[in-house]
Amino acid sequence: MNELENLTAKINQFREERNWRQFHKAKDLAISVSIEAAELLEDFQWKTSDEAIQKNSENIKEEIADVLIYSIMLADDLGLDIEQIIEEKLEKNAIKYPVGKSRNTKAKYTEL
Amino acid sequence: MNELENLTAKINQFREERNWRQFHKAKDLAISVSIEAAELLEDFQWKTSDEAIQKNSENIKEEIADVLIYSIMLADDLGLDIEQIIEEKLEKNAIKYPVGKSRNTKAKYTEL
Amino acid sequence: MNELENLTAKINQFREERNWRQFHKAKDLAISVSIEAAELLEDFQWKTSDEAIQKNSENIKEEIADVLIYSIMLADDLGLDIEQIIEEKLEKNAIKYPVGKSRNTKAKYTEL
Amino acid sequence: MNELENLTAKINQFREERNWRQFHKAKDLAISVSIEAAELLEDFQWKTSDEAIQKNSENIKEEIADVLIYSIMLADDLGLDIEQIIEEKLEKNAIKYPVGKSRNTKAKYTEL
Repeated sequence: MNELENLTAKINQFREERNWRQFHKAKDLAISVSIEAAELLEDFQWKTSDEAIQKNSENIKEEIADVLIYSIMLADDLGLDIEQIIEEKLEKNAIKYPVGKSRNTKAKYTEL
Repeated sequence: MNELENLTAKINQFREERNWRQFHKAKDLAISVSIEAAELLEDFQWKTSDEAIQKNSENIKEEIADVLIYSIMLADDLGLDIEQIIEEKLEKNAIKYPVGKSRNTKAKYTEL
Repeated sequence: MNELENLTAKINQFREERNWRQFHKAKDLAISVSIEAAELLEDFQWKTSDEAIQKNSENIKEEIADVLIYSIMLADDLGLDIEQIIEEKLEKNAIKYPVGKSRNTKAKYTEL
Repeated sequence: MNELENLTAKINQFREERNWRQFHKAKDLAISVSIEAAELLEDFQWKTSDEAIQKNSENIKEEIADVLIYSIMLADDLGLDIEQIIEEKLEKNAIKYPVGKSRNTKAKYTEL
């Protein structure tokens, strides 16, 4: 079992021990990803990146973990392979953002 | 190199080829996680979970990937090990949500 | 002074008494709108609309107020008239969603 | 009819002409507030406040309007008076953030 399968197994064990799969509708998992993403963002509210990292590094770490945990749950429930969907998205992004045009610019692909 | 290190390396290669690290301040990566999480949520707007999955499965897949990609970038920039932060968060959650009290309930830990 | 001007004045008085305008960069106000919107959403996490309203109506009320307060701050800082921007957006939406085509359907305008 | 009642009436007319109230469950309106808040935030992604305002002022205006429109819909559906909930929240915030302690600091009330 590789590393991502191992993590997914641990996450699933956590919810199964609590019999929580009954609550984990895809829509509510997507809602949960947004809520955790906002909690991560709250660590940066009114702050520069440096100030946030200096003051909130412990909580930033936990909120990133929460975003990942809910995203992995949702992916697993939908039968998605995380390595595959990330690699496919990178390939798609590489077409939208060809190196020649997108180098050194933060412009959106619609503006390149 | 294990699977997560391999994925992180591919994600980093993508941004280095475009010289994008200059734009990737932690605060903007956290903003990006929230934006992608909301795009994922949009696939479920006005729909049940089943309707969303039936209609938008392709886009749901891509938005989960985007959430993961930005989260992995941010974790990597902060020197965090993804496997470790998820395992630590699961351990912390296990204390907040002991199996005995939290089984079969969706109550928040503050209400248990 | 009409009602919205009156509300804006009270909101501005609140931040001026605390000398908080120094922190209220537009980007951080936009971040704050997202954070409050997610706190509102949290009241609905794992619940139907009815369950959420029954259980969390007091907090829902406060989170809607927070979303409105930060939105009004941002609009005011950008010199926008709230009545005008809402009316203009409704006019624009009316063109994107003509009554004939959009009646009784939740399809996005790109699908009509 | 005052200004906020007038705006609420126009927003309601918009959805009634399209018979959209059938889709406007409170949970989906809360989801919509989050989605629009993230679209507002996207105007600030990778940018300083000044860069965002210079480049995206037209879209920022529209996204603030969208956040307000969905928030007003939700408040109206729950029978809430917007002026009242904002004034009550300001009063509550004034207790959490007394002028003497909170002046010139961006610290959260839990840290004052």
